[in-house]
Amino acid sequence: MQKHIAIVGAGLVGSLLACYLSKRGYKVSVFEKRPDMRLAGYIGGRSINLALSHRGWKALKKTGLDKTANAIAIPMKGRMIHQLSGSTDFIPYGTGEQAIYSISRGDLNRLMVEQADEFPHVDFYFNHRCDFIDFEKNKLRFEDTLNNRFVEVNTDIIFGADGAYSEVRYEMQKTPNFNINQQHEPYGYKELSIPPGKNGEHQLEKNALHIWPRGNFMMIALPNMDGSFTVTLFNSFKGENSFEHLTTGQEVETFFAQQFPDAVALMPNIKKDFFENPTSSLVTIRCFPWKYNHTCLIGDAAHAIVPFYGQGMNCGFEDVKELDEILDATGENWEAALDKFQHQRKPNGDAILDLALYNYIEMRDLSGREDFQLRLKIEKKIAAAFPDKFMTLYAMVTFSDFSYAEAKKRGEQQSELLDAIMQLPNIEQQWEGEAVMQMAKEWINKNR
Amino acid sequence: MQKHIAIVGAGLVGSLLACYLSKRGYKVSVFEKRPDMRLAGYIGGRSINLALSHRGWKALKKTGLDKTANAIAIPMKGRMIHQLSGSTDFIPYGTGEQAIYSISRGDLNRLMVEQADEFPHVDFYFNHRCDFIDFEKNKLRFEDTLNNRFVEVNTDIIFGADGAYSEVRYEMQKTPNFNINQQHEPYGYKELSIPPGKNGEHQLEKNALHIWPRGNFMMIALPNMDGSFTVTLFNSFKGENSFEHLTTGQEVETFFAQQFPDAVALMPNIKKDFFENPTSSLVTIRCFPWKYNHTCLIGDAAHAIVPFYGQGMNCGFEDVKELDEILDATGENWEAALDKFQHQRKPNGDAILDLALYNYIEMRDLSGREDFQLRLKIEKKIAAAFPDKFMTLYAMVTFSDFSYAEAKKRGEQQSELLDAIMQLPNIEQQWEGEAVMQMAKEWINKNR
Repeated sequence: MQKHIAIVGAGLVGSLLACYLSKRGYKVSVFEKRPDMRLAGYIGGRSINLALSHRGWKALKKTGLDKTANAIAIPMKGRMIHQLSGSTDFIPYGTGEQAIYSISRGDLNRLMVEQADEFPHVDFYFNHRCDFIDFEKNKLRFEDTLNNRFVEVNTDIIFGADGAYSEVRYEMQKTPNFNINQQHEPYGYKELSIPPGKNGEHQLEKNALHIWPRGNFMMIALPNMDGSFTVTLFNSFKGENSFEHLTTGQEVETFFAQQFPDAVALMPNIKKDFFENPTSSLVTIRCFPWKYNHTCLIGDAAHAIVPFYGQGMNCGFEDVKELDEILDATGENWEAALDKFQHQRKPNGDAILDLALYNYIEMRDLSGREDFQLRLKIEKKIAAAFPDKFMTLYAMVTFSDFSYAEAKKRGEQQSELLDAIMQLPNIEQQWEGEAVMQMAKEWINKNR
Repeated sequence: MQKHIAIVGAGLVGSLLACYLSKRGYKVSVFEKRPDMRLAGYIGGRSINLALSHRGWKALKKTGLDKTANAIAIPMKGRMIHQLSGSTDFIPYGTGEQAIYSISRGDLNRLMVEQADEFPHVDFYFNHRCDFIDFEKNKLRFEDTLNNRFVEVNTDIIFGADGAYSEVRYEMQKTPNFNINQQHEPYGYKELSIPPGKNGEHQLEKNALHIWPRGNFMMIALPNMDGSFTVTLFNSFKGENSFEHLTTGQEVETFFAQQFPDAVALMPNIKKDFFENPTSSLVTIRCFPWKYNHTCLIGDAAHAIVPFYGQGMNCGFEDVKELDEILDATGENWEAALDKFQHQRKPNGDAILDLALYNYIEMRDLSGREDFQLRLKIEKKIAAAFPDKFMTLYAMVTFSDFSYAEAKKRGEQQSELLDAIMQLPNIEQQWEGEAVMQMAKEWINKNR
C-alpha cells in the first residue's frame, strides 16, 4: 500500500516537501494551524523579506517551483551601505551576475501552496493545530479550530515542518533524551516600509540590499515587485537608543531623523508603521535528535536561526533536497533515511546558526567600517586570483555547494590569513601590491 | 474574596507549597497526573533515595512536616568509600552530629500529601494531566484520565511544581521570550537493591552513604528503614564497561563480580533487578523566565538538576521557604512577589545545577583517590581552625544558610588555596605541619 505521510506546517519548507514526496508517489497530507493563505490573504507585519540564493534555487528546481519563484524575485547584486553622512558604498556580493533574490514570504508561500496542491495525492488541511502526537503509533491529533472539534489522523511518517515554534517539536520534547536549547536574542525587529514613488518606481537602487549600519543597531531595506521596499529596524530591547526608548511619537521621530535622515525622507508613514507593527523577537533553536520513531523535524523546526545570513529558507529547502537524495541512496528505507538525514544535516544546521548570529555584528557594525570594507576587497582579490582554492566566506555560504559546516570551517581558516594581511603596515596603501598576494599564495600552498 | 491557587504536581515541592499557602489562608487546589499514591502505592524502580539536609529540614519545620519526615529518616554521617580491593574508608560529611538523612521518596511523598490534605482549604485532584494553560486568564485545562473527560479550572495564581518534565513549563515555553536549555547527560542510572539480613538488620554500615567509585562509573547505596539498601548504578550509556555492554545475564554477572565483589555478595537478586528495572536518564534544565503573568515554575520544573549533590529536593523546599519570606516582604503583592522570587532564586538554581554536575566527577572518580581524600582532610582542618572564616564547600552547600550561589563562589575561591597547598612538596607527609596552616592564615587574611 502507498505510504501516507503527514506534514505539519504548510509554510515554505512544508509545501516544498509535499511536492518532493508526491513525486515519489506518496499520499501526502499537509496540516496548517493558520487559515488558508489563498483565501485569507497573508498576515504580514512580522515577516522579513526573504533572500533566495543558490541552495534555495537548486532545491526548488527539482520540482519546477523555481519558475514560480523567479516570476516574483528581484535580484540584489550587493549591499548598499548608507553612512550617517548620507554617502553610500556599494559592495557586490559576488562576481558577474551572482546575486541573491528578494522575495516576499507571503507571495512565495501562497504560490507554493497553490502549486503543491496540484501535485498528485497532496491534500492541504488548514485551521488544523497539532495538539498531540502518539510517536509509537504515528498518530496525530489536531484541533480543527474552524469547526471546533478534534481530528485524529493515522499516518506512516510524520514531518514537523512547522517552524521555530514547532508544535511537533514541543511534543517530541517529551520523548526520552530529547535535548533542546531555545534562546531569544536580546535584540528584536520592527517592520517598516518605503512606499513606491509617484510613478510606481523604486525610490532607492532596486537591485541592492540596503543597509544602514549604526554600530549597535541597523536598518535594512529589500525591494518588492510593486516598487516599495520592506524596511526592518533591528535593535536591542534595552540600553541606549534601543526599543525601550522608542515609545513616543517624538522619540521615534528624533531617532529616525538623527540615525537615518536619508531613509526617513522616503518614509511618510514612519510613526504609524512603528506603532502599529509589533516589535518581534528573534529565536535560535538547537536541538537533537530530530527524529523519534517515524517522526522527523525539518527546516526551522529543527534549527531555527536568526535572519542575518539570509539562509533560513535556503537551509530549509536544502534539507528537503538532501532528504530526497538520501531517500534515493537508501532505496526509500525510511528508518535508515531519517537517521542519516538527521546526522548529515545537524552539523550544517549548527554551522549556519553560528554564522547567522555572527553576521549581525558584521551587518550592523563592521559593514560600515572602512577597514572591514578593505578586508572584503582583499578577500575577493585573493578569490579571483585562486578561483579553485579560495572562495570568500560569503560566496561559500551563498553561492556554493559546500556544506555549511565546510564553509564555516574554511571561513575560519581563511580568516587567519586575512587577519595577518590586515596587520601589514600601510595595508590601506599597499593592498593591491605584491606582498599581499605573496602571503596568500604561501598560505594556499600550505593549506589547500 | 479568598484567592484560589492552583498547584500542578502533588510531588514533594507541590505538597509543601500547598501547606505554606494554606497557612496564609488561600484556597489551594493541587492537580497531579498520577494516581493517588495513598491508594495505589508508589511506583518505584526509578527513584533514587533522597538525602534530606539542612535546607530541606528548615523549610519543612515551618509547617510541622519535619516531625513527619524525622520518623522515617536515617542519618548518614559520612561517605563510606568501597575500594576495589574490598577495603573501606569512612569520610565524615561534617563535624559532630552533622549528617544528611536518607529518606524514601515514595514514603515521604505519601505522608506529605496525607498531611497537606488535612490543612484547611487544600484539595487534591489525582489523575489530572495538565493539557493547556491560558496564561492571560489564569485558566487551566486538565485531562481527567480516570473519567476520560476534560476539566477547566479558573484560578488566580498557578504554580508549576510538576518536576523536570513539567507540563506547565511546556506550555510556558510557547509564551514569548521563554529561554530553555534541556540537556540529557550521556550517563544514566539503574536502581538495584541490597535486602535486609536474616534478622532484618542492615548488611552494611547503616549510618553512611556507601560509594563504590570506579573512575568512569560508580555504585551507591542508601539505607532504608526496613534494613534494606537502595542501590544505584550510575554509568555511561556508551563505551567501555557501560550500559551498552550489559545486555546479557553473563555480562551483568561478570561486571558486578569484577567491579563490586563486596556488594554483589549481598545482592542475590542482582540479575532480576537489573533486567526488570529501567535504565533511566538524567536531565538538566536551565530556563528563564520562571514567571509569566500569574503562573510561576518552582522546584525541578524551574531548575532540574542531576542528583549528585543530594540537593534537588532540598533546593525545591528552599524555593518554597524563600517564596514564603518574599510574600511576607511584599505584603502578598503577588505580581511583585513572583518577580522577586524568580530573580532571587534563578542564580541559586544555576549554582546548584553546576555543583551537582561537577559532583558526579567527585563521587565516581576523585572520592576513591588518596590525594583527593587528603585534600578533603586539609579543607576540614582549615575549617576547624577558622570556623568563622572558612567552611568546606560541602558544608556550605549542605549544612549552611549561605545561598547556593554564594557557596559556589566561595568554594571556587577556596579551591585556589587548596590547589596551592596540594602543590607543596611532600604534602602527604607534612599536611599537619605549620606550613599549611600558615598559607591558610595568609589566604584568609587576604580574602575573608
